[in-house]
Amino acid sequence: MRLLDAALSVVRAKGYAAASVEELCQAAGVTKGAFFHHFRSKDALAVAAAEYWSETTGALFADAPYHAHDDPLARVLGYVDFRLELIRGAPEKFTCLVGTMVQEVFQTSPAIRAACEASITGHAAHLEADIAEAMRRHRVSGTWNAKSLALHTQAVLQGAFILAKATGDPDAARDSVGHLRRYIAQLFNRPATKERST
Amino acid sequence: MRLLDAALSVVRAKGYAAASVEELCQAAGVTKGAFFHHFRSKDALAVAAAEYWSETTGALFADAPYHAHDDPLARVLGYVDFRLELIRGAPEKFTCLVGTMVQEVFQTSPAIRAACEASITGHAAHLEADIAEAMRRHRVSGTWNAKSLALHTQAVLQGAFILAKATGDPDAARDSVGHLRRYIAQLFNRPATKERST
Repeated sequence: MRLLDAALSVVRAKGYAAASVEELCQAAGVTKGAFFHHFRSKDALAVAAAEYWSETTGALFADAPYHAHDDPLARVLGYVDFRLELIRGAPEKFTCLVGTMVQEVFQTSPAIRAACEASITGHAAHLEADIAEAMRRHRVSGTWNAKSLALHTQAVLQGAFILAKATGDPDAARDSVGHLRRYIAQLFNRPATKERST
Repeated sequence: MRLLDAALSVVRAKGYAAASVEELCQAAGVTKGAFFHHFRSKDALAVAAAEYWSETTGALFADAPYHAHDDPLARVLGYVDFRLELIRGAPEKFTCLVGTMVQEVFQTSPAIRAACEASITGHAAHLEADIAEAMRRHRVSGTWNAKSLALHTQAVLQGAFILAKATGDPDAARDSVGHLRRYIAQLFNRPATKERST
């Protein structure tokens, strides 16, 4: 849907509040009449865009090669490596729609906030299942749990995107995600170097 | 300065683009004439606000008790504990002005982006010095360096703030910063529990 793709593109480049309905229509190649035929407000488009983001990124991650590992820890580290591969080029191409939107509207739009929360926690839940299985398989436990570590991976990614935006350098984000990879390897008593699949 | 304080308050609550000059003036209790007497544009206020943020938070951290530790590693972990203490209440009270602004304007305002970068990297540089000293004192080295770890702490904090905004729960941010603390302790071969000062 052209307006949803336009929202992904324009909001990731300039933020949510700065993206006017006019600009979104122009980017989508539709009239304002068409916009308000589909969405009752810009906020309604944002909620739909967050759900569309969850669907499209969900398909990208579901099809990613790291799921083929038999060892759940290799899947978890493979997820992080896959995220590292995605961080390249201009920040508006690799940063997160819902992290950007919720940064602005967490207080002013409960509906957008809830859609962004669902996107982030829904994504983390897939990783949580692999982390939980890795903890059982490798007999690792601690004062942390799988859900908490899964959410931490999302925090690191979101913060890494902010570093890349602030410095203009994707490597700033990659360095931080590299620290995340080392942390997870340490939690499972593995060397920080790239895991072989088992 | 009332307009700078107003910028901190309004931008942290609703983002930069959504904060109108009218609203900033109202929050500061000044006229639009007074606004444009001091600042030629909203962007000019944002640059000044980023610098004011660096100064005020810089003073807060400079006066924090963790500097009293003789062991530089205790200072680094004490810094993280101090950040944990600050995460309480409503997100607009504990989240970061410059992380919020740069999320939106990294591409559209080079001047604000540069001011936000200077604020984040300047803050990290203080911590980098303690990390470097801790690496020497405790004979720790790796494929990472002090600067990279210092910037990673800022990424985790920024991302933790986004989790708190998305979930409405400061504990989501605290959990993630707790993972950061455990990671640093592991890098220095320390247990993840609270360090005693030495």
